[in-house]
Amino acid sequence: MKPNYKIAVLAGDGIGPEVMAACLEVLDACQQRFDFQLEYQHGDVGGCAIDNTGSPLPKQTLEICQQAHAILFGSVGGPKWEHLPPDQQPERGSLLPLRKHFGLFCNMRPARLVPSLQCACPLRADIAAKGFDIVVIRELTGGIYFGEKGRATHADNMEEAFDEQRYNQAEIARIARIAFETARARGNKRKVTSVDKANVLMTSMLWRETVNAISKDYPDIELEHIYIDNATMQLIKDPSQFDVLLCDNLFGDILSDECAMITGSMGLLPSASLNEKQFGLYEPAGGSAPDIAGKNIANPIAQVLSAAMMLRYSLNQNEAADAIELAVNKVIAKGQVTADLASNKIENSSPLSTSQVGTAIAQAILATA
Amino acid sequence: MKPNYKIAVLAGDGIGPEVMAACLEVLDACQQRFDFQLEYQHGDVGGCAIDNTGSPLPKQTLEICQQAHAILFGSVGGPKWEHLPPDQQPERGSLLPLRKHFGLFCNMRPARLVPSLQCACPLRADIAAKGFDIVVIRELTGGIYFGEKGRATHADNMEEAFDEQRYNQAEIARIARIAFETARARGNKRKVTSVDKANVLMTSMLWRETVNAISKDYPDIELEHIYIDNATMQLIKDPSQFDVLLCDNLFGDILSDECAMITGSMGLLPSASLNEKQFGLYEPAGGSAPDIAGKNIANPIAQVLSAAMMLRYSLNQNEAADAIELAVNKVIAKGQVTADLASNKIENSSPLSTSQVGTAIAQAILATA
Ligand SMILES: [Mg+2]
Ligand SMILES: [Mg+2]
Repeated sequence: MKPNYKIAVLAGDGIGPEVMAACLEVLDACQQRFDFQLEYQHGDVGGCAIDNTGSPLPKQTLEICQQAHAILFGSVGGPKWEHLPPDQQPERGSLLPLRKHFGLFCNMRPARLVPSLQCACPLRADIAAKGFDIVVIRELTGGIYFGEKGRATHADNMEEAFDEQRYNQAEIARIARIAFETARARGNKRKVTSVDKANVLMTSMLWRETVNAISKDYPDIELEHIYIDNATMQLIKDPSQFDVLLCDNLFGDILSDECAMITGSMGLLPSASLNEKQFGLYEPAGGSAPDIAGKNIANPIAQVLSAAMMLRYSLNQNEAADAIELAVNKVIAKGQVTADLASNKIENSSPLSTSQVGTAIAQAILATA
Repeated sequence: MKPNYKIAVLAGDGIGPEVMAACLEVLDACQQRFDFQLEYQHGDVGGCAIDNTGSPLPKQTLEICQQAHAILFGSVGGPKWEHLPPDQQPERGSLLPLRKHFGLFCNMRPARLVPSLQCACPLRADIAAKGFDIVVIRELTGGIYFGEKGRATHADNMEEAFDEQRYNQAEIARIARIAFETARARGNKRKVTSVDKANVLMTSMLWRETVNAISKDYPDIELEHIYIDNATMQLIKDPSQFDVLLCDNLFGDILSDECAMITGSMGLLPSASLNEKQFGLYEPAGGSAPDIAGKNIANPIAQVLSAAMMLRYSLNQNEAADAIELAVNKVIAKGQVTADLASNKIENSSPLSTSQVGTAIAQAILATA
């Protein structure tokens, strides 16, 4: 019998619903071509959930997620909800609790230069010509963002603030293992580059020691260490040298964005947040883009590639994941793209709508069957 | 009577002595053309000071610095001293105590794209063509590098480490003032971009508040705030949008290196570390390059531009500083450069030696007189 997977589909706000619709059309094509079934369970999340239920993550939505094999997330937020207090806003009020509830400690952000979009790369032509295919593995639940923090006024009326960064071996070891496993599964350069500032930070020294210890279990994977400041430089000088970048929460926040920028195509980037049981939340790396919402012009490819990551990392449907990624490459190469790519990046192409791109990818998947 | 300035000249190790010699030739030309006198007091520092006296910062050298109007620093360190314990090594044992002794809380790193070296810029041609002229103002004595840090083993044998970031209003206010003053003195875009992560860090919230408060004294200077992760992206997408970047210690460490990289010419970059009394230590942003030391091939321009910063910021000799910067532009445009620039960056030029470049810059200064 075909395996059957329950998918929590949380489209959210802004362009979320329309890119999700295109994405589901692609997933439907995968179900036709490959031997598995997906059962979509839709749930409200973010701003629209606040409007409908008063909460950015209603109890019912959390229950849908608990019963699912994976969460496919659109995007949340918009000017309508910006007046709310920080922890009631769509993003903090939905993504943070979901990460916490499911223990999603690993953020994974691939950044690949699509050959037909080389001219969009903001790096010098000879650097871009070498291409790159990087995945940033970021620790997501520890470090300075979640450490003790506070603020005090001293006797002389002087205000002072502090943030503490704290890591233990277990937190570092589990994210390091994912980095090595990922380098092995990708089978590209088979290299992990661990990012730290071990010349000054105590947490970085423990990070480096722990990563060195874990690397003993992966003799087939090369390990190198790099300081965060040098990493930001090397990503500009020659990104082709990297394969898997292993980072703590803060450094990963920085480098995943820098990697996104050097692809030149922010609308194409998927992301995954995983726990130790391969359960994950999959979402585009970009935002809800309220300015273009509802116009059927948003690029759905980041959402579609997020679904491919879901098939690969949570459902073990690698063939279907490969098929989606191949189909995406094809439609981009043919110029079947939305306005953000069509306008100035690919010659002789007039823009397609969000849904047309979804259909084109779905057809490319079925055509190859 | 001519003003007379005492300069502590600490050439140090590696290429330090040879680039310093070229630099002093340039300063001699300035003395000929302009109305001031420099009195050089040479002191041992770094590895050579360890060899000669047992200490990377001998008492005599510190005394020379105390009696000087400014410190002109070469570079320190090399493989010969790498076996030493961290705090006895040339760099940590000399630069950190000097910063501490003189309260050098402000690090200033200009990063400018030299028009004739545009092809060396690692950014896409159309981005490089817009040029950029940025100065990074980095808080140098606080933040996570100098906060409480430690390591502990818990009952279950689990190791844990922590680093604390702490800032108070006074520390932020004094560095913010320098940023606004610098934007005003430069008279370019008249803009300060303050870098933080105020959406998650308590220290960043205090940073932003304090910078906002100080900005009230500078109504002629535009202020914008940017998150560190977005800053690393914008520096790649369009560095021409920036003028003065104001950063804490960690974020400045990262961004000053990223800015250096996008110039494409790391051998050209000066730096200054200043206190509130305009006393400063001036040094090239690069290292001691032991691999090419003693060969008279190292690029002296970073050292020469550091001397120009010294004239501008500690000695108020702006005309002489301008003359050096102009002369440097001229010799580069004429291709009178060392091998690092000559080989593949400027067409039809055969490399000059370190001392030849120094002479060329000195002559250019005198020729314009
Ligand atoms: Mg980020
Ligand atoms: Mg640095």
